[in-house]
Amino acid sequence: MNIVDIIVKTKRGVKLCREEINWMVENYVNEAIHDYQISAWLMAVCFNSLSEEETFYLTEAMRDSGDKLDMSGVAGVTVDKHSTGGIGDKTSLVIAPVCAACGLHVPKMSGRGLGFTGGTIDKLESIEGFRVNVEFQDYINIINKNGAAIIAQSGHLVPADKKLYALRDVTGTVDSIPLICSSIMSKKLATGADCILLDVKTGSGAFMKTPEEASKLAELMVKVGKSCKKNCRAVITDMNEPLGNAVGNSLEVIEACNILAGKQKDRLYELCIILAANMLELGGMGDYDECIKMAKEKIDNGEALKKFGDMIEAQGGNRKAAIDYSLFKQPKYKYEVVSDTDGYVCAINSEEIGMAALMTGAGRKSKNDSIDPTAGIILNKHVGDYVKKGELMMTLYSSTVSDMKPAAERAFGAVTLNHEKTAARPIVIDTVK
Amino acid sequence: MNIVDIIVKTKRGVKLCREEINWMVENYVNEAIHDYQISAWLMAVCFNSLSEEETFYLTEAMRDSGDKLDMSGVAGVTVDKHSTGGIGDKTSLVIAPVCAACGLHVPKMSGRGLGFTGGTIDKLESIEGFRVNVEFQDYINIINKNGAAIIAQSGHLVPADKKLYALRDVTGTVDSIPLICSSIMSKKLATGADCILLDVKTGSGAFMKTPEEASKLAELMVKVGKSCKKNCRAVITDMNEPLGNAVGNSLEVIEACNILAGKQKDRLYELCIILAANMLELGGMGDYDECIKMAKEKIDNGEALKKFGDMIEAQGGNRKAAIDYSLFKQPKYKYEVVSDTDGYVCAINSEEIGMAALMTGAGRKSKNDSIDPTAGIILNKHVGDYVKKGELMMTLYSSTVSDMKPAAERAFGAVTLNHEKTAARPIVIDTVK
Repeated sequence: MNIVDIIVKTKRGVKLCREEINWMVENYVNEAIHDYQISAWLMAVCFNSLSEEETFYLTEAMRDSGDKLDMSGVAGVTVDKHSTGGIGDKTSLVIAPVCAACGLHVPKMSGRGLGFTGGTIDKLESIEGFRVNVEFQDYINIINKNGAAIIAQSGHLVPADKKLYALRDVTGTVDSIPLICSSIMSKKLATGADCILLDVKTGSGAFMKTPEEASKLAELMVKVGKSCKKNCRAVITDMNEPLGNAVGNSLEVIEACNILAGKQKDRLYELCIILAANMLELGGMGDYDECIKMAKEKIDNGEALKKFGDMIEAQGGNRKAAIDYSLFKQPKYKYEVVSDTDGYVCAINSEEIGMAALMTGAGRKSKNDSIDPTAGIILNKHVGDYVKKGELMMTLYSSTVSDMKPAAERAFGAVTLNHEKTAARPIVIDTVK
Repeated sequence: MNIVDIIVKTKRGVKLCREEINWMVENYVNEAIHDYQISAWLMAVCFNSLSEEETFYLTEAMRDSGDKLDMSGVAGVTVDKHSTGGIGDKTSLVIAPVCAACGLHVPKMSGRGLGFTGGTIDKLESIEGFRVNVEFQDYINIINKNGAAIIAQSGHLVPADKKLYALRDVTGTVDSIPLICSSIMSKKLATGADCILLDVKTGSGAFMKTPEEASKLAELMVKVGKSCKKNCRAVITDMNEPLGNAVGNSLEVIEACNILAGKQKDRLYELCIILAANMLELGGMGDYDECIKMAKEKIDNGEALKKFGDMIEAQGGNRKAAIDYSLFKQPKYKYEVVSDTDGYVCAINSEEIGMAALMTGAGRKSKNDSIDPTAGIILNKHVGDYVKKGELMMTLYSSTVSDMKPAAERAFGAVTLNHEKTAARPIVIDTVK
């Protein structure tokens, strides 16, 4: 086999067979095929796409490029969850304890944030003492004891994805549905859960700008997952405005605690309940309606919040942080943004809010930057809300950036006010089974 | 500026401005931009093409990436010629002395062959003692004295093309008309002649398979050349069968000498006259018909052949080689191919003949291979000829490959015989001014 022939086939729309895809991935990982050849192939994929079969072969080859976790040590059905990424998406922090409180096993390996997107691992690290690097056997033990653990990806998992992802990032070849699918699914398959729930975001703040694109990605991922004998489902959810009120690391953990405590019953709460119910149903805990009821109960009776405390404790943190927010590092600076006019909020550009949060120190501009855990933004208004001139719109926090005016201007610029009311969109658009 | 933005622009069909293209080429040459980024961009160009303006900017940026030759030391108008490459194309060896004999100045820097295509420089080196590496001032002196010199490309000319060409070769991004145009034209522009004649080959043995594609390339090259203030013209010529009888290095030099001596007045002769006349007309030596007449005269009166002798002598060879072919190294082995059936030759696949010649040792499989100057093929039959069973079709020669049966089978397999006569195609299809 020859990489130039393979590139030219994809360029001409000729389908690749399993052997060709395996050969390519294997030889890319062992460096017999060069980055400059794969980037040309990736660009050809952006133009000509891949068939479902090719995507399945690619995902399998990537999954098999490194170690695979054996989760058979967990005594019960395991359900993993993945979000395609959004601003203010702290749902994992809520769902894992809710599901665990219901008796489900939730093993979750998460990533760090880059650019305007946050990472679950960074958020958890804002809890003092919380260890995200956990040995595999401890990971299994914690899941068996508490039902859930969220740890950082480690070891030699899916090296093909690491290489391909980094290459796509610097070659303008990110936005290809089969490439996104194989990247997500290869990782999820290698981490070994029995069932996978996919939260595919759509809207201005998401990678998939339209519900149609999101549906395509969701359907492809579910098909690939099922071809790999996993019980898979995708929920397509709205990302036309940031999710919840908080964007930033400790701010989001605190908001997750508020949701778990039943203190905040908004759109974010609604989404958490729906996602948790889907996971519970996938894991065989009952029919959908029963699972919705169960998830709500675990919040209302305090068991979900207690479970989050257990999770924090198991990974080295102080369980009281879930109820006493003074245990988080406090921001040194704050900047309040008030409205300069009256009107209804008709749009909040999530990406711009993400960029503003990045400017406060909440994220990384490049891979090795450190994060200010206290930094970020609390939004007081959402799409559909009425704002009076002079009323508080949002507050920016930071311990590293004393002059937050530029960040505040960017954040305020992300909000569009109008004379007519725009209704908030439904949080769940579709479910793909 | 940012290379990812540039890649994405081309990917989305957004035109690049001159500054962006300059920046990209400059930073690619100085290695601030990586191969894997440029290969992704090249693939995007293969899909979305480049506009005429972008191609012009790219060509200029490539031309300016290294040294440029100052040909003002030549006392007269200089006319260069470039062929897009064909099997058995030895026209430069004929045209340069013919034009020089007419009083034109022909500075020509040529390349070596790779794969099944031959290189003018390799052909000339089959003349014992012939020096292809000539200092710039000597080059100018020879041109002033003899009217023509053909030397190897040297120095730091168009490094951007060297890098891009090598990258395209290994990333399946060769077949893009704007990329081919900028590669050819940047080199021709950097070597500094006043006028450029382009011989754009079309047919089974050429890169441009159809006359339509060849026209597109020809028109684009002429436009780009004119935008760079060069007097430019393109002739679109047939490459549906090998050009002339000989394929191989010394074999082709000998055939060129036969043409120069007026001993061979065939399709190849016709093409040489037409190309020479176009160059003469470009150089202001008269109108086209006068130039045709002049070129023919210089062959018939022996001046062209004498001029070739002068050229050989000026570059260190024995001028007698042009008339005494025993001065060439003789092949050790020969293999005659006779027809196994009666019929008309209706097609000769040039690429396959090139591959067969490569198998005799006439070419390089990879860049650093050495060449057997005596090796190659003499074709006795052409499209339109009738062949009887047992009649000689072709002879293969080599000094390095004693068993030429596999090469002979490949060469014979390249010939299609039929019961009905196919007329040979006209050698010149169109002229683009």
